[in-house]
Amino acid sequence: MTKERPPYAPEGFIFGEEGAIRMEIVRQIAAMKEFVRKVKNNGATLGLVPTMGFLHEGHLSLMRQAKAACDVVAASIFVNPIQFGAGEDYETYPRDLSRDAAVAEGAGVDVIFAPPVQEMYPRDFISYVEVTDITSRLCGASRPGHFRGVTTVVNKLFNIVQPDQAFFGQKDAQQVAVIKQMVKDLNMNVKIVTGPIMRETDGLAMSSRNIYLTEEERKAALVLSRSLGDVRRRLLAGERDAGLLRVFLQERITAEPLADIDYISICEAGTLKEADIVTGSVLIALAVRFGKTRLIDNLVWEG
Amino acid sequence: MTKERPPYAPEGFIFGEEGAIRMEIVRQIAAMKEFVRKVKNNGATLGLVPTMGFLHEGHLSLMRQAKAACDVVAASIFVNPIQFGAGEDYETYPRDLSRDAAVAEGAGVDVIFAPPVQEMYPRDFISYVEVTDITSRLCGASRPGHFRGVTTVVNKLFNIVQPDQAFFGQKDAQQVAVIKQMVKDLNMNVKIVTGPIMRETDGLAMSSRNIYLTEEERKAALVLSRSLGDVRRRLLAGERDAGLLRVFLQERITAEPLADIDYISICEAGTLKEADIVTGSVLIALAVRFGKTRLIDNLVWEG
Repeated sequence: MTKERPPYAPEGFIFGEEGAIRMEIVRQIAAMKEFVRKVKNNGATLGLVPTMGFLHEGHLSLMRQAKAACDVVAASIFVNPIQFGAGEDYETYPRDLSRDAAVAEGAGVDVIFAPPVQEMYPRDFISYVEVTDITSRLCGASRPGHFRGVTTVVNKLFNIVQPDQAFFGQKDAQQVAVIKQMVKDLNMNVKIVTGPIMRETDGLAMSSRNIYLTEEERKAALVLSRSLGDVRRRLLAGERDAGLLRVFLQERITAEPLADIDYISICEAGTLKEADIVTGSVLIALAVRFGKTRLIDNLVWEG
Repeated sequence: MTKERPPYAPEGFIFGEEGAIRMEIVRQIAAMKEFVRKVKNNGATLGLVPTMGFLHEGHLSLMRQAKAACDVVAASIFVNPIQFGAGEDYETYPRDLSRDAAVAEGAGVDVIFAPPVQEMYPRDFISYVEVTDITSRLCGASRPGHFRGVTTVVNKLFNIVQPDQAFFGQKDAQQVAVIKQMVKDLNMNVKIVTGPIMRETDGLAMSSRNIYLTEEERKAALVLSRSLGDVRRRLLAGERDAGLLRVFLQERITAEPLADIDYISICEAGTLKEADIVTGSVLIALAVRFGKTRLIDNLVWEG
């Protein structure tokens, strides 16, 4: 049974047998822009879910959210070299495009944009988008240049796909804050929508990097979600002293011998400035290494 | 005689008596985006001429060029503080919005976007667009941060106005190269069109800054266009040694006692790398101070 080509799909898009992968995977920027042009000419709204692939339920929930909000959903799958620092895991970052395509289609994605690196960064590429100030804190402190890489690629993706809405996971809380700031400051024409952190049944925040963990590290990593849960309970019990909560978090996490803290932050959710007192919208964010694997997790408290 | 509101003009736009200024001057980003949305909904093409105002024939020729190429022409008038360095002429840069509006209308401009500074740069503004490498040369060497200010404001203007085509004067040759690079690298959806340098009858390149010149400096400044003319004649005569041409230019300009050279460049037009031999598309560019006034002029040689 052949699925009909939807009205927004450009000529040349091939839709195969039921159950097979029916999406075309677009690799060239010009072809993606052409797809977008036809979608817009048809008056359809367009959602974008930017990812680095190796999709998990966190990504898929964003894709379903996008499908519910927009007529057409594009997902980008691109392991972005310029957001990785020297000695980070760019080379070893997990990749599985054929599996990704299958599960993305199941989540309602209409087109995947998966450009080669040289398509995004030709030899003479020299332009960058940079959000200052809030990018020097939290993950930015231990990953210099990371957010410049993120904002640059997301800016490019927004210009290529021209989405009405773009969907990002709250797990990367600082990334969300940085991208919202870029969109606001540069007057970009896209609405940023966030989806909640997806967790394994034992509480570990889903991440493509979780596969790096040994069995022992995997168990140890539960200290992140458990500690954040404990902080939430202390907040519910009325604690508002950010300093005390930081000490509490530090003690909880250092109690786990395999945990090596990168940062513990209790900060104002928009400016990422460290808070003295928990009031307003506050981000409680952690980055902790387990062996070679750096994991992040967070909690947003609306006071 | 009241002019009818054109079909692309949003509700609330006031068109007055013949001979009076009939354009609305839009000051808010949201209102400008609303104007643009209606233009695009009507299927009209949109041209943008970004300026810092105090319009001269250079700007007006770009506006006429835009009107010939696009259905609707927007001109922005915004003296962009972040492209001025400390000690530069941001405060004293000439401004005359009512005259600008009148002459822009005469050149076919349909809407002027003239935002207040705080509309473009609210207190919490922290995002920048930066083209590296080619911005460290020529004007970038003596004006650090200048091009970051230019690319940031032009990126914002492109996102606000979403023009099909944007028009820049070739007088600011490096600015043109930098903006083309930004548009290419960030995959922006706008075509960059350049217009030729407009000159006074005696050859001085038109510039809003020419009014700073004393009568004596004004005469001395003719050394720029005269020297470039002499270089062109040497090129026409077959000279291709960039080193010899640089020395020739230096001697010609230093012969003028009031001229204080900032730079003389003979470079590849795209990369702005200094050339040894004049071959391909070559930019011959000058920046020279006369008293407190820094003037630029250039010549592009297609070999």
